[in-house]
Amino acid sequence: MSTPNTSETIAFYFDIFSPFAYLASNRIDEIAAQHGCRTDWRPVLVGVTVMKIMGMKPLMDTPLKGPYLRRDAERIARVWNVPFRFHGLKGHNSLTAMRAYVWLKQRDPDLAKRFAKAMYRRLWADGLDITPIEASMEEARNLGVDPGDLRSAVTSDDIKRLLQTSVEQAIGNGVFGVPFCIVDNEPFFGCDHLPMLEHWLTHRTWDSA
Amino acid sequence: MSTPNTSETIAFYFDIFSPFAYLASNRIDEIAAQHGCRTDWRPVLVGVTVMKIMGMKPLMDTPLKGPYLRRDAERIARVWNVPFRFHGLKGHNSLTAMRAYVWLKQRDPDLAKRFAKAMYRRLWADGLDITPIEASMEEARNLGVDPGDLRSAVTSDDIKRLLQTSVEQAIGNGVFGVPFCIVDNEPFFGCDHLPMLEHWLTHRTWDSA
Repeated sequence: MSTPNTSETIAFYFDIFSPFAYLASNRIDEIAAQHGCRTDWRPVLVGVTVMKIMGMKPLMDTPLKGPYLRRDAERIARVWNVPFRFHGLKGHNSLTAMRAYVWLKQRDPDLAKRFAKAMYRRLWADGLDITPIEASMEEARNLGVDPGDLRSAVTSDDIKRLLQTSVEQAIGNGVFGVPFCIVDNEPFFGCDHLPMLEHWLTHRTWDSA
Repeated sequence: MSTPNTSETIAFYFDIFSPFAYLASNRIDEIAAQHGCRTDWRPVLVGVTVMKIMGMKPLMDTPLKGPYLRRDAERIARVWNVPFRFHGLKGHNSLTAMRAYVWLKQRDPDLAKRFAKAMYRRLWADGLDITPIEASMEEARNLGVDPGDLRSAVTSDDIKRLLQTSVEQAIGNGVFGVPFCIVDNEPFFGCDHLPMLEHWLTHRTWDSA
């Protein structure tokens, strides 16, 4: 039951690097469907780009807050019944994986979403590194994508530029971390703002009845 | 209906300086009561102490995140139907007000809580400065406390040390911002973690049934 000036598309900003975006990625499509909406998964590079603009150090390395966030991710996973464990990886990043995502999204947004979910499981459920291009190639192959095509694409200037542009657009839209949702120009940051998103989708106003 | 190893007291860490702690202060006692619990309001100095330990700049001054948080506080206030507006004050702080709080808490925790609520309204509903000692004296007088006694107390070394010790204990308990609740050693940061707190108070476990 939509009203005229509301959007049916929820922009879901994510980075495969982020444990909280992984957790939210397990729920966002269901939340959207419950309100007759669809999602548009948009790539962000939180570690590489956004934190630098904000002048912040990585959250997980922040005194006091880092240990809290680890604990919080683990209990949210238990409440939501999502397979999750902290990997012990160091120096890993999601750059190649996110390039592969934008390339796949150009071809088929649903296929790209399945790829992102596979990469999320790989990192946050199975604890496997996603940094080497071979990780993206393997998950793409499982989805019927030619891994050689993927290798060519993610090393092309076009795809590098496309991801960069996407991240710049996200920042332009006020995105400073993930998960981050925008619908009707209302921004929602973090797993723990999904209830506020659901409130908005239900009422489409912040005023009490 | 308590189980043997659960606590009936929710530690509620607050700083009058914080808009989000103000918002949560309007709900925490009701949430506690609904679960047969009481609250212990514990003072923190977020701006003065905690942010320095974390090496973070004030959140409201953080690019991208600052504007988001302002908007978020305003919409949470509307959903919760709490009187709220951003004051335009600069260079204000809650040091004297929080010293007055710990002094009053020694005498009467309930009276101290009423004082904190009055100071919160003063700053976050009426937009009046809370920095000068006269602000604390006026709100104390309204509660039947001798303002001269308050003036002597908050300038005493004992009370300064007591607040400092309280803040150090909070940090020792992992508190890195406000609002922050702890019950059964489970930490909850932020207004938007109150649903997780309620989940805990209801189930006292993170496992699904």
